[in-house]
Amino acid sequence: MGFNEVRKDYLLERWVVIATERGRRPTDFAKKEREQAKTSVCPMCPGNEHMTPPAVLAYLKSGRSIKKAKDKNGSRHKNWLIRCVPNLYPAFAPPKEKLTQKQIMKNDNLAVAVGHHEVLIESPNHDEHPANARIPQLTHVINGYIDRLREFSAKPYVRYISIFRNHGIEAGTSLSHAHSQIIAMPFTPQIVEQELNASKRFWKQKKKCVFCEIMKNELDGPRMILENSRFVVFAPYASVNPIEFWIIPKKHQTTLLDLSPTEVKAFAETLKTCLGGLKRVVNDPPYNYGFHLTMNKDARDYYHWHLEVYPKLAVWAGFEKSTGVYINTVTPENAAESLRKTISS
Amino acid sequence: MGFNEVRKDYLLERWVVIATERGRRPTDFAKKEREQAKTSVCPMCPGNEHMTPPAVLAYLKSGRSIKKAKDKNGSRHKNWLIRCVPNLYPAFAPPKEKLTQKQIMKNDNLAVAVGHHEVLIESPNHDEHPANARIPQLTHVINGYIDRLREFSAKPYVRYISIFRNHGIEAGTSLSHAHSQIIAMPFTPQIVEQELNASKRFWKQKKKCVFCEIMKNELDGPRMILENSRFVVFAPYASVNPIEFWIIPKKHQTTLLDLSPTEVKAFAETLKTCLGGLKRVVNDPPYNYGFHLTMNKDARDYYHWHLEVYPKLAVWAGFEKSTGVYINTVTPENAAESLRKTISS
Repeated sequence: MGFNEVRKDYLLERWVVIATERGRRPTDFAKKEREQAKTSVCPMCPGNEHMTPPAVLAYLKSGRSIKKAKDKNGSRHKNWLIRCVPNLYPAFAPPKEKLTQKQIMKNDNLAVAVGHHEVLIESPNHDEHPANARIPQLTHVINGYIDRLREFSAKPYVRYISIFRNHGIEAGTSLSHAHSQIIAMPFTPQIVEQELNASKRFWKQKKKCVFCEIMKNELDGPRMILENSRFVVFAPYASVNPIEFWIIPKKHQTTLLDLSPTEVKAFAETLKTCLGGLKRVVNDPPYNYGFHLTMNKDARDYYHWHLEVYPKLAVWAGFEKSTGVYINTVTPENAAESLRKTISS
Repeated sequence: MGFNEVRKDYLLERWVVIATERGRRPTDFAKKEREQAKTSVCPMCPGNEHMTPPAVLAYLKSGRSIKKAKDKNGSRHKNWLIRCVPNLYPAFAPPKEKLTQKQIMKNDNLAVAVGHHEVLIESPNHDEHPANARIPQLTHVINGYIDRLREFSAKPYVRYISIFRNHGIEAGTSLSHAHSQIIAMPFTPQIVEQELNASKRFWKQKKKCVFCEIMKNELDGPRMILENSRFVVFAPYASVNPIEFWIIPKKHQTTLLDLSPTEVKAFAETLKTCLGGLKRVVNDPPYNYGFHLTMNKDARDYYHWHLEVYPKLAVWAGFEKSTGVYINTVTPENAAESLRKTISS
């Protein structure tokens, strides 16, 4: 079938994509990898469009307006603002024929990795960190997320869409050109599933969205970082990463698809401000961010999308990996205070 | 009270030790850390015993026999084989007075980090990797684990004991002298709790230990690495780490305290062989290992202790961290084949 396998642990509710198709040999690790660092030609830079698969989506400068397009017939558009291309080594790959749910979720411990895995090139500028991007450009990036989210949401075999960004080699970036990744997958991942279950329980008991309550409780508290008319940013109470923060919309929304154009712009501004604060507090640290959202219409009342930002400032070692308990050497209160001061100065 | 806090996530069953007592400022991360690499004097090497807290346990050479001792009255024993000392910056710290369970588990989302955190110095030789250690020395290390496990098991505020080892800077080692760590904590960590629950369910249905069944199913299969008279080693079906492997006793045992002296020696041999195989396959990679065990007498029928070894050959990035789903680029079958061949050659 040509798919990777997704296997579930013997006992834990934990899934792993096993790259059966393009697997690596154990001995491949013997030589140190960092080969990408040596690459002199960046396949994501303008002029090198032929080095990537054709774009599934590009925003093109067209006089004063923006045109959306796809690369067609092997050609590549040039004058782009953002480009979205399939990942050359996808963890999840699209089906060539219609698959039944039973063909996808084979048994309790095995699924085929059907879905999509794309790279969103965020700017023609190689080093464009969101902290330094212009707001119109960052707005294109968010709109790009939304366009892909809309397309994947309509696929019958897609149950969840993960949108994430890795910055810095220590945070897992293999190519340094500013980019995000989008993975559409055939099941809801563990962490989001747990959030869905817990927020559903809360809703049943109190007829309130637990995330709206969390936001209300954090407002004006010691972990608050930023509040504007549309968004709230805070360091979560039990942050597992030093200087972790979350951005959450004030309006109760379950997915990025609920954002109005004004809200998209406000989100771009909030993101730029906070990542800029992080960059100044810790001197451009590596980090990951990931959106939590749901496409599940039943969850409309009780789930609430948000962005989680994880600075990569510690190494999870034997204790964390074997127990699932974390040690964080920076209190969320200290983290919030530093970010708050830096952002407002 | 002088304790770190242990906080639970708003919604997830996930706990984090927040170092409120010896917290770091966010700006501390601005200067690159690796200062330990510059340290010219190793506090764990013989002759520098005064640089550590007094040993809570030391095995001393005493003619032809081994004597167990503690450092007393500020003195430090010299002629040691292994030394176990309190961690200078403990994640969990012992109580100075008796605490009730309610004083420890303050509410659903907050506990005080009462417990112990120790460092077991595995050898007088700075660079003694278990792959190269002599079996008698490695037997001392395992016996050291068992002695500390026995002591901590008797403490009323201890619910779980995590024994783990970090090798290499990328795997989180801050000091390169061969050592393990032991953490005694006031609750059962998430991953072990999930294993306990799942194995209890299995027991109720089938009156069998699920780990004994897993072992039976893996024996002679494509993920088998090594079998001897006492232990089985295999790459787990849903390994989240490249070249991950588990060592499990053939006899149904819930904790290391069940090991006979003969079994301790057999375990030392098995550990040395497998870590040696890993070292040769991947040229001394960083790794973590951690024991899973239970002190819960009710779990005697259905839980089964084992050691999980996680080579650190990949970076968990935005996808893994935000979803709890992993991508592993080496199939467990390939991993097992490589280790099997290397070990038997």
